[in-house]
Amino acid sequence: MPEGSPVPERYARLREALAGVVGPDHVITDSSDLAPYLVEERGRYRGRAPFVVRPANTEETAEAVRLCAAARVPMVPQGGNTGLCGGAIPFESGEEVIISLSRLRRIRALDADNFTITAEAGCILAELQQAAAAANRLFPLSLGAEGSCQIGGNLSTNAGGVQVLRYGNMRDLTLGLEVVLPDGAVWDGLRGLRKDNTGYDLKHLFLGAEGTLGIITSAVLKLFARPREVVTAFVALPSPAAAVQLLGRARSATGEAVTSFELIPRLGLEMAFRHVEGCSDPLDSVSPWYLLIELYGGREAGPLVGALEDLLATAFETDLISDAAIAQNAQQAADFWRLREGIVEAQKHEGGSIKHDVSVPVSKVPDFIAAATAEVERRVPGVRPVPFGHVGDGNIHFNLSQPEGAEREAFLVQWQEVNEAVHDIVVDLGGSFSAEHGLGRMKVAEAERLKSAVEIEMMRGIKRAFDPHNLMNPGKVLISRR
Amino acid sequence: MPEGSPVPERYARLREALAGVVGPDHVITDSSDLAPYLVEERGRYRGRAPFVVRPANTEETAEAVRLCAAARVPMVPQGGNTGLCGGAIPFESGEEVIISLSRLRRIRALDADNFTITAEAGCILAELQQAAAAANRLFPLSLGAEGSCQIGGNLSTNAGGVQVLRYGNMRDLTLGLEVVLPDGAVWDGLRGLRKDNTGYDLKHLFLGAEGTLGIITSAVLKLFARPREVVTAFVALPSPAAAVQLLGRARSATGEAVTSFELIPRLGLEMAFRHVEGCSDPLDSVSPWYLLIELYGGREAGPLVGALEDLLATAFETDLISDAAIAQNAQQAADFWRLREGIVEAQKHEGGSIKHDVSVPVSKVPDFIAAATAEVERRVPGVRPVPFGHVGDGNIHFNLSQPEGAEREAFLVQWQEVNEAVHDIVVDLGGSFSAEHGLGRMKVAEAERLKSAVEIEMMRGIKRAFDPHNLMNPGKVLISRR
Repeated sequence: MPEGSPVPERYARLREALAGVVGPDHVITDSSDLAPYLVEERGRYRGRAPFVVRPANTEETAEAVRLCAAARVPMVPQGGNTGLCGGAIPFESGEEVIISLSRLRRIRALDADNFTITAEAGCILAELQQAAAAANRLFPLSLGAEGSCQIGGNLSTNAGGVQVLRYGNMRDLTLGLEVVLPDGAVWDGLRGLRKDNTGYDLKHLFLGAEGTLGIITSAVLKLFARPREVVTAFVALPSPAAAVQLLGRARSATGEAVTSFELIPRLGLEMAFRHVEGCSDPLDSVSPWYLLIELYGGREAGPLVGALEDLLATAFETDLISDAAIAQNAQQAADFWRLREGIVEAQKHEGGSIKHDVSVPVSKVPDFIAAATAEVERRVPGVRPVPFGHVGDGNIHFNLSQPEGAEREAFLVQWQEVNEAVHDIVVDLGGSFSAEHGLGRMKVAEAERLKSAVEIEMMRGIKRAFDPHNLMNPGKVLISRR
Repeated sequence: MPEGSPVPERYARLREALAGVVGPDHVITDSSDLAPYLVEERGRYRGRAPFVVRPANTEETAEAVRLCAAARVPMVPQGGNTGLCGGAIPFESGEEVIISLSRLRRIRALDADNFTITAEAGCILAELQQAAAAANRLFPLSLGAEGSCQIGGNLSTNAGGVQVLRYGNMRDLTLGLEVVLPDGAVWDGLRGLRKDNTGYDLKHLFLGAEGTLGIITSAVLKLFARPREVVTAFVALPSPAAAVQLLGRARSATGEAVTSFELIPRLGLEMAFRHVEGCSDPLDSVSPWYLLIELYGGREAGPLVGALEDLLATAFETDLISDAAIAQNAQQAADFWRLREGIVEAQKHEGGSIKHDVSVPVSKVPDFIAAATAEVERRVPGVRPVPFGHVGDGNIHFNLSQPEGAEREAFLVQWQEVNEAVHDIVVDLGGSFSAEHGLGRMKVAEAERLKSAVEIEMMRGIKRAFDPHNLMNPGKVLISRR
């Protein structure tokens, strides 16, 4: 619909029918109420929509989808709207109805003996973590937006975060799903089973599908034992290659108790010192690279501290590391984490930054950082790469701060060209050009450029099988061809 | 083709074309050479086939599939032929060509720093375990047939086994796949990445699909740190409910180091004493139920022994357990495992047995065992249930030995009726009627009976999208409707 045009008749009829299902208060049409649903936090993606529907439960969601499908009106499912790739934002056409899942926020069940929690799509991640903790269990997904992101979005983007090394991605944490399919039928796959081999694994299709195959309304998620011992260390070392070596040794020496293994370059640390309150150097000497290591164990007596001390002592003797500090209390551990998290915040104060969310095999992280750094320095003299993040998963956030004194816009205009050059290196190393955040609107074209024709055709076949009229979040994950 | 009829012309032409691809020695037509491909170990499933094709690599597999597809000849992929549900056995029609993957047995790569191994479909599981161990890594999949089963079959059936609690099923151990699709195109999804969010997760469709969507030719699999401390215990306790309680405490107390947690009923133990050499009671007192517990840790110093001792001491004081022995050396640990594994062997000497491979939420295991035992005792007076297995995964092998002195055939004729009654209880408890072994030919009808229409239709949609002519292992997983 062009700007300012009246809502066409069929949308008026649909709106009325939807109001009959969810109640008039839960069909949002007022433009100021609509506004927050139409733009993403960073402001990179904006769109339009005739209205937002806010069902209260699975049945209302299914009925809303049935009505939209019958009217051949496309739908955009939306959760906490904290994604950064535009996956939950409608396009500019104004033809898409937003279905917000935020009212589906019940925790339906917590089965401590089965180590599972059953939660609806609109639950806030942090609330889920708290519910698990109250039952002496751990829900391990942890990421920056946990205070406002919703489980449905975590599921639909297969969220990652800082504990994937030990506990896996959201996909790995999911045992069962309930999904409203594009025609409004409900698939009840809410099973809390560790073993179930009765045909094709349907849940994995919806996980990470960014709402293009249906709307996830609820999930059965794995819980774990709450750690009784948490050991946090900050380690200085000469290179990413040393980090990879230390990772292997740490996994062996601790019996796979490594929960986080985060790489930090000196420049990132310095930016945090400059711009983020409470950040100071935990070590006396200066080093080109650092690791934040965290281990989770089961005994208060603390056998993991000893394991880590022995490991680091040996690593120090063989020059694999140059310095290390083990947090002596929770405050020190929080200070180490503040440094890690401060990098993202600090980079905002250093001018424009061009970002990459890539992964490679863990063994290729050193090659990737070397090759990508050389390539971007060649293209953009003076650029300041700050490669940091989840080296334990091979997932490096290869973020580039603009050259000092350069013009922000002149730097950012190179975003796509730089992205493509870095992604080519990633693909050469057997890696992924979207490790954690998904394709959304941001990377659909890149997916077509970098994926094989066989793979794109398989994805299109699945989309056709589930959503033959291309009504469910069209144009996300796959480019729409009409 | 009816018995004894000559091979029709189109099969003769196809055979010649296939011989041109794989070499005449690798198209097996001689009936005595064919025989082992046409029957399963237990003898429950038999079929016919005009010939077996044995490609040497992915390219030959792809070309063979292309030729069969062009001739509209259906194909049955086969690995080690150790499945027990008929999934790799052709039907009696004699129209299906068997494609054996056993010549694809290269280990293509082992990347110790990335904790991955890349293996072809025909690799024997035990050889993979050995290759991993030689690189100081663990490949954790472990099951009875590991000396002869092949990785392709493990992938296609999503194999489970005795360490799923800690390391997951085959599905969870797989990072990437290479697959020959039903039209002969090759999908190269051989990525060794922990994080990759670039659209639909295609690999999970082929995992557990029993060769009905394509032929897996190679996989990138996860490796883990080799344990330096292995603690094995044999515990007596009053009930399955006590086992579930102890599991939760053990996971917490050991920092999730519980690798195996196997339930054994007294009757199963007694059968092992009677029939299996080297089996004797490791405890002085008699108990209705037992657990075999195994923990894996990273320190030779042995902190897990202390954790387990403390846990068991507290459990003893609170009457959660009645007795326990911790293996003092590898021989004692092996003796404990011999008891667990002896149950299957011993039951063969106790007459006919009706088996179930079911799972429920871990918390429902006690209810399941109680309800299913009551039901089968009502139906078959004198029946001797031996429910044992992976209580840590909620996966109980609910195996029933015939009443003492009963007639074997009169007992076994009740197989389907008893299965259905037990499966109904399982489904009521939110469980699965096929936890580990898959559907094959054995449980396709049961799947249609117990799964929702929505779920069956989704599965059919996927099958149509990937295999529109129903040529890839037709009639497995889904009943063929022609």
